[in-house]
Amino acid sequence: MNATVDGDVVTARGDARQRFHDARGYGRADGPEVTLARVETAHLLYRGDLDAVSGMDFRAFFRDSVANEPGFAARFLVYTDLRERGFYLAPVREGWPGSGGDADDADADADILVFERGEKPGGPVAHRVRVVGEREELAAADLADVTLAVVDEESEVSYFGCSPGGGFDGRTEYDLPHGVDADLLDDRVVCWEPPTRLYESAFYGQPISGRDDADVDALQLSLLEAADLAARGAVDLDADAVVERGRAVEGDRFDRRLAVYRRLRDDGVVPKTGYKFGADFRTYDAVESVAELPHSERLVRVVTPDHRFHPRELALDVRLAGGVRKSMVFALADGEAAEYLTVDRLTP
Amino acid sequence: MNATVDGDVVTARGDARQRFHDARGYGRADGPEVTLARVETAHLLYRGDLDAVSGMDFRAFFRDSVANEPGFAARFLVYTDLRERGFYLAPVREGWPGSGGDADDADADADILVFERGEKPGGPVAHRVRVVGEREELAAADLADVTLAVVDEESEVSYFGCSPGGGFDGRTEYDLPHGVDADLLDDRVVCWEPPTRLYESAFYGQPISGRDDADVDALQLSLLEAADLAARGAVDLDADAVVERGRAVEGDRFDRRLAVYRRLRDDGVVPKTGYKFGADFRTYDAVESVAELPHSERLVRVVTPDHRFHPRELALDVRLAGGVRKSMVFALADGEAAEYLTVDRLTP
Repeated sequence: MNATVDGDVVTARGDARQRFHDARGYGRADGPEVTLARVETAHLLYRGDLDAVSGMDFRAFFRDSVANEPGFAARFLVYTDLRERGFYLAPVREGWPGSGGDADDADADADILVFERGEKPGGPVAHRVRVVGEREELAAADLADVTLAVVDEESEVSYFGCSPGGGFDGRTEYDLPHGVDADLLDDRVVCWEPPTRLYESAFYGQPISGRDDADVDALQLSLLEAADLAARGAVDLDADAVVERGRAVEGDRFDRRLAVYRRLRDDGVVPKTGYKFGADFRTYDAVESVAELPHSERLVRVVTPDHRFHPRELALDVRLAGGVRKSMVFALADGEAAEYLTVDRLTP
Repeated sequence: MNATVDGDVVTARGDARQRFHDARGYGRADGPEVTLARVETAHLLYRGDLDAVSGMDFRAFFRDSVANEPGFAARFLVYTDLRERGFYLAPVREGWPGSGGDADDADADADILVFERGEKPGGPVAHRVRVVGEREELAAADLADVTLAVVDEESEVSYFGCSPGGGFDGRTEYDLPHGVDADLLDDRVVCWEPPTRLYESAFYGQPISGRDDADVDALQLSLLEAADLAARGAVDLDADAVVERGRAVEGDRFDRRLAVYRRLRDDGVVPKTGYKFGADFRTYDAVESVAELPHSERLVRVVTPDHRFHPRELALDVRLAGGVRKSMVFALADGEAAEYLTVDRLTP
């Protein structure tokens, strides 16, 4: 069989169209010929389906492709991994199955289309895969609706599904008290003799002790909880003073976290600290009472809208969340607004 | 009972020495009186054992102490938590039980001494506790042999045990080949037709495919593995060129990681990527063969000697390691040298 490379495409003649395109879903049919992307060609060489392209064996063609296409090695590894999982694939590229005539918006961030299991190229798409190396940073804003394939330094591939929205289903209801006596002390607040429902039902704060032998009836609040409660009139503190204290100890991060905290409370979701999980919040959709606290469903990390994820941090956050049976949600906070992005590990 | 505050100490008279010091291990005996630290005094007020100090009730004394001693609120929370767990405690302070006449080196980074269960103040010490707020950064170099008590923003306390050394017990043995043919391609290396023992026994690299239907016999190496193997003469590549490539994609971090990688290999430990756990390496003390790979015992994160930990990152790393039944080891890499620090969660 005769196959020749010209820049970023390979043309194969003879029975290649029937063998590779029609029967096995590689490339783009061009009349009696088939046009293959380099990644497809390398896979055919790798499997021994092609012996050589323009005189190059797998090793020579791979070297040539690495020199010609940035990120080729990682793309080849992901292409091979997905093919071995039994999917039909196509590179995102004008004229290839599934890609629009132009680079359309939905595919702009993707490298490979994975068609649903059992579907031929051009059929329904299961994953729009973006291939990234472990060392490449990822703009948070580019991650909605993409499947990340992260190739680590030892060439193993991990997949992460990114989807817009946080999946919250807030159903917590409570009445807040009014003007509870409180002190702003250091980087926390103490409420004195609070009505029990503030903790027991609304799940604000933490009693100053778990023991019954204390002579003191007090509830500790985080600065976020206190700022939120002060703004709602529930504690007798100047909301601005609490926010100022928050900024003094955390900087701008406090404002971002407060915006997300408020929005979650407004939506009937209860956010509590996610410190033990390395996150900003763990969240409960529906708290009836602290005595019968459900499992918290999500971990939330608050980031700026221009945040760039390091794939290793993403792996850490998502793995930890999975290990404690929670979803990992990133909140891209911009002033009072927040966009949520859910990221989970997946096995295609 | 008469108790008066003067700066950072409280003097209690009457039967206070017998009741608080002799019977329950608070404070420092001064003849017929007892001298109490503010944190001890607040605990006695909190429990109702003292009614007032210089006319101040718990709330007033707490406010006064927060204004006088930086970090008082967090220290009080930890003191209370540890007392409730049934330990005798003493503040680290000249003249208090367990503290030397001077601030001695071992205690310089500690705030509270916890005596072994069942032991009185001044007996054997179970934990030298350093109290930190969730937002305070911690110098890595200060953490050997201390128990960290991290108080999160909602006033919950998490404990971490820090101990010098990594606990490695390297027992992996293998013979390396010589001058294996290899290409440096992008940010990885491909070895062509390597002897099987390079992977199967020494556990370097990753076969280019898990499937048997490949027509190619190749092993992918990370840049770290390749730099190490090139320096040992096992692959036919210029070691300096590999290191240069590593620096180009990772900067100085590559040198630090390589120094730790080499040291581990020299010690008979097998480091492989820890990417999926958000770490630099996962390590195996004893690999007989990849076919019978044991559980990896440790996760290693490489940091600079002047690294400052953020308690939230520490919580994330240590929790994840615990969740996958591994120890978390930090390698403080300085040139060719490395000091190890093991951090684990503990419940006093």
